[in-house]
Amino acid sequence: MAITVVGSVAFDTVETPAGRYERQLAGAATYFSLSASFFTDVRVIAVVGEDFGPEQEAVFAARNIDTTGIEHAAGKSFFWEGSYLENLNEAKTHNTELNVFGSFNPQIPDSYRDSEFLFLANIDPVLQRRVREQMPDVKLVAGDTMNYWIKDHKPALLEVLKGLDILLINDTEARMLAGNNNLLQAARAVMTMGPRMLVVKHGEYGATLFDKAASESHRTECFRAPAMPLEEVVDPTGAGDSFAGGFFGYLASQGELTPAVFRHAMFYGGVMGSYACERFGTERLQQLTREEIDERFKIFRELTHLD
Amino acid sequence: MAITVVGSVAFDTVETPAGRYERQLAGAATYFSLSASFFTDVRVIAVVGEDFGPEQEAVFAARNIDTTGIEHAAGKSFFWEGSYLENLNEAKTHNTELNVFGSFNPQIPDSYRDSEFLFLANIDPVLQRRVREQMPDVKLVAGDTMNYWIKDHKPALLEVLKGLDILLINDTEARMLAGNNNLLQAARAVMTMGPRMLVVKHGEYGATLFDKAASESHRTECFRAPAMPLEEVVDPTGAGDSFAGGFFGYLASQGELTPAVFRHAMFYGGVMGSYACERFGTERLQQLTREEIDERFKIFRELTHLD
Repeated sequence: MAITVVGSVAFDTVETPAGRYERQLAGAATYFSLSASFFTDVRVIAVVGEDFGPEQEAVFAARNIDTTGIEHAAGKSFFWEGSYLENLNEAKTHNTELNVFGSFNPQIPDSYRDSEFLFLANIDPVLQRRVREQMPDVKLVAGDTMNYWIKDHKPALLEVLKGLDILLINDTEARMLAGNNNLLQAARAVMTMGPRMLVVKHGEYGATLFDKAASESHRTECFRAPAMPLEEVVDPTGAGDSFAGGFFGYLASQGELTPAVFRHAMFYGGVMGSYACERFGTERLQQLTREEIDERFKIFRELTHLD
Repeated sequence: MAITVVGSVAFDTVETPAGRYERQLAGAATYFSLSASFFTDVRVIAVVGEDFGPEQEAVFAARNIDTTGIEHAAGKSFFWEGSYLENLNEAKTHNTELNVFGSFNPQIPDSYRDSEFLFLANIDPVLQRRVREQMPDVKLVAGDTMNYWIKDHKPALLEVLKGLDILLINDTEARMLAGNNNLLQAARAVMTMGPRMLVVKHGEYGATLFDKAASESHRTECFRAPAMPLEEVVDPTGAGDSFAGGFFGYLASQGELTPAVFRHAMFYGGVMGSYACERFGTERLQQLTREEIDERFKIFRELTHLD
């Protein structure tokens, strides 16, 4: 089933211990779409500026991603500059320019209306909510956010959370959102805010899925997917969005959303996040094949399976 | 098969967000022994002072731990004072008094000589080596160390590593020992120093077993055991030693050391580490039952198993 995703399509300048690149195609919706496109049809809602040309368009086209909903506006695309020189697990932001995103009013193309899955990638919660409200009948809604929105835009974010089935954030964000340093307690608190499931991403240590229904029925209330120790982490940018794309893309590709399907989705999330880190920017996702994904899925299974 | 362990039997004063305790029985060899005693016979080599009396002796006796090799010396036992107020994952040391450990010369009781498993708990590498040399014929030797020995006593530590089959340390220590921030590269470097296996403990994120033989035969070279998100982390002191006790205790309880046995041992390590954190000091380990261990093992299996 098709996924509609709203989020940033942007340009990044990034420095890591492995090197540096300038103004390359990036953004949460880009990483998410490329990743999810290996599992299902993906349709993007975003706004770009005049710097987004045929070269960038071709990246989406190569993965059959529907860009009907990408609005082209006068000015420059969203721009982010950051580095990971001291800590590969945490980006240091040097510059953020909203540019065309400053006045973005997302519209849903008619051809997107039958999407049964909706992903609200990291973006101003006001925009996330506007898209959510225009797609009231989707089967499953997941979303991401970041420390900035939790800290300074909490009321708007809380409105978004009410409309989510699944929230995907990292440890620090989960603790910050709940105001509780204990991860299990924080997860339970977040699941009273709207989402019935919470995926907490632990970077190089994998991710944990918390499930409210399991908790209430006294089943094991969480599931932990591993990450794979990588030979070299070239660039962690977009790893979380790629995780989300693998996770949600796999869910959308399945008929029934059983607990086993969610567990597999967590593993596919880990697989896609690990691939994203292996090259600069979106390079690895652009060159990836489904065979490579399934190969690494087997390694992830081996990584944690007892018998 | 019996394990001989050498390490500190000590008294700790500890403060955590959950509270504080003064001069309670602690030390790496104590946590390790209590934990391993649920799986096999354990024999301790250590030195204690006049503050170690019948009350402390009874803790070992209750778990049938052989204390023949605990030497009683004039003076005070090893003492450590620390806190976890800002970060539950990392202790802040306020005071360390070597006391009777300052002049300790470990002797192996004759009744320990048929131990087939040897664990060198965190202690001065000079002492670890002296014990290792007195037990040249053991079947399997594992050991632990810490940042202090890696930083300031590296030559002595490198000598110890030559005599180890398995080293158990945490992420920071692995990176520091190898001088490499990439965990996989660091693990491979450590496995050229002597140990053919390396267990890297990730605190609340579980632990990873690296296996040189697997790496050389192009099999999956690592295995990741989860940790369980805990309702409350009362006191993380001794969690790493309890992990080691569960891991090595389980290995010693098995006839053949197959890859599957190592995988199960990693899970038992995680189980014991998680229990250790639930109460202050050694309290939880003292009250634990084998049934509770097997119950939690099932939860750990559920935590990561796909199908």
